[in-house]
Amino acid sequence: MTKYPKIESVEKIAVVGTGTIGSSWATYFLAQGYKVQAWDPGLEWQKKIGDFIDNAWPQMETLGLHSAAKKSNITLCSTLKEAVSEADFVQESAPEQMELKQQLFSQLHEFSRESAIISSSTSGLIMSDMQNGILSADRFVVGHPFNPPHLIPLVEVVGGNATAPGAIDWTIEFYNHMGKHAIKIKKEVPGHLANRLQAALWREAVLAVKNDLASVEDINAAVARGPGLRWALMGPHMIMHLAGGKGGISQMLHHFAPGIQEWWLDMAENPILNDELQKTLIAGIEVESGDRSIETLEQQRDEQLIKILKMLSKTEGH
Amino acid sequence: MTKYPKIESVEKIAVVGTGTIGSSWATYFLAQGYKVQAWDPGLEWQKKIGDFIDNAWPQMETLGLHSAAKKSNITLCSTLKEAVSEADFVQESAPEQMELKQQLFSQLHEFSRESAIISSSTSGLIMSDMQNGILSADRFVVGHPFNPPHLIPLVEVVGGNATAPGAIDWTIEFYNHMGKHAIKIKKEVPGHLANRLQAALWREAVLAVKNDLASVEDINAAVARGPGLRWALMGPHMIMHLAGGKGGISQMLHHFAPGIQEWWLDMAENPILNDELQKTLIAGIEVESGDRSIETLEQQRDEQLIKILKMLSKTEGH
Repeated sequence: MTKYPKIESVEKIAVVGTGTIGSSWATYFLAQGYKVQAWDPGLEWQKKIGDFIDNAWPQMETLGLHSAAKKSNITLCSTLKEAVSEADFVQESAPEQMELKQQLFSQLHEFSRESAIISSSTSGLIMSDMQNGILSADRFVVGHPFNPPHLIPLVEVVGGNATAPGAIDWTIEFYNHMGKHAIKIKKEVPGHLANRLQAALWREAVLAVKNDLASVEDINAAVARGPGLRWALMGPHMIMHLAGGKGGISQMLHHFAPGIQEWWLDMAENPILNDELQKTLIAGIEVESGDRSIETLEQQRDEQLIKILKMLSKTEGH
Repeated sequence: MTKYPKIESVEKIAVVGTGTIGSSWATYFLAQGYKVQAWDPGLEWQKKIGDFIDNAWPQMETLGLHSAAKKSNITLCSTLKEAVSEADFVQESAPEQMELKQQLFSQLHEFSRESAIISSSTSGLIMSDMQNGILSADRFVVGHPFNPPHLIPLVEVVGGNATAPGAIDWTIEFYNHMGKHAIKIKKEVPGHLANRLQAALWREAVLAVKNDLASVEDINAAVARGPGLRWALMGPHMIMHLAGGKGGISQMLHHFAPGIQEWWLDMAENPILNDELQKTLIAGIEVESGDRSIETLEQQRDEQLIKILKMLSKTEGH
């Protein structure tokens, strides 16, 4: 007997907190045919989430809607209780403040069905701390999306000390069922996994600026016109598998591990993001951006992202 | 008066060393309408480079050939002298051995035109060492491509102590003229830039395996289904610019720099690639690969890569 709903029978998802992340989640859930119960304590949140969904909907149409998908399948609720009381699943995307999350979690425990999993979008907080003292802590998990959640497939799922293993497995299966790519993070560490990987790359890119190895624009190109093109297709370990010739990763490790170990020693520095370094970074981005505003750059990124996602979704084995 | 040829007037390129990198370069040069003079001291190199070009040509057709491009515009030369004596530009892709490169460079100096730039594909050696003692060292540069050179746009250009600044600028302009994305590396460091960035990401990915944060397959997905999708479109600093909301990178640095500095302290470990860790990596890749051979994975990667490159080439501002 499973205490959680059958994956296929989930109909209603509560979206608690409708900032950029919550609104993006709501868009994704609607596009996958779910009914969304949204709530936020903020000002004019109803207009903001409506605008977000309207703007993003053509993107979802391009990527392909579920047959039951309707933009109008959203209820803008007046209270948290109304939003969650009949939900089969709750996605929480409140601000990243521990006390606020803990108070909210108590209320979520009180108002939601006992069978409903409550998944937190937190990127910076640790579930074991947030769930501490909550009565139904076993059904609280982290389901951390990558921005923007309505486009990027990755969701990192990790439980706290009090989370039931079954709740983690159910959440991974549920996200995958709706077309996300959920991965299981086995330990609670700051930044989960993907943001740590991103920070590690950025550290070396910041060091390259600090050491004046190349211009900011050229350092960006060193990723986007080089290895970045492959990272859209496969992760770092698989890249190494294909760097080893016919012998694969075993051969790669045999030939290159000692050299790479030496490089790593040469990359041990943590650059300090002081005023001077920050100014160099900002000036470099200004040169590269030219007359392209942030909105223009974002729009261009999302258009290209959708084309890559569409192409990958048509390919076997991805 | 420029001592180097006019960029637009370059017709003949010598490809010295026709292993995987050299053959891939030859394919690219032919596709851009150049005449290629190839030479290699190895066994059956003529058949190998012919097979390589035949296999890769349909990819080049998909990406778009120069109007003058012909597969048959290649001369398989019997001697190094024959290959380089009439070349306007030399791309050297010999094995990564210092003594071998130094001897080869002496011959390249002797046999080539004084006006021809000689660009080395070396990924691991330093030009200042290789060019030491060569009479025409000022026209020797590193032009390091990213594998496979016929597909990936990035070329890292860096000079040695004796390289003329004009030779570096000419080489960058020449690569860009033929459709590559050349960047200027201002200092000689092991691995140039892109391979260092790649090694920094891989280090954190190896640490995640060592610390059992997630499975090898899930760590790969944490890149390829998440931030990797954006790295095909923009580099790490530009990503941070768009992570800062309307305030861009200034706002991002203001809000997140202290937190990221702390993460960096938590990422200071250099994992040792010992037998146990290597076994875990290899076993993880075996799980992810399933019944897909290295050839299948490579073919899939190249097909997808070509689609991304084609899409990006149609987009403004890239």
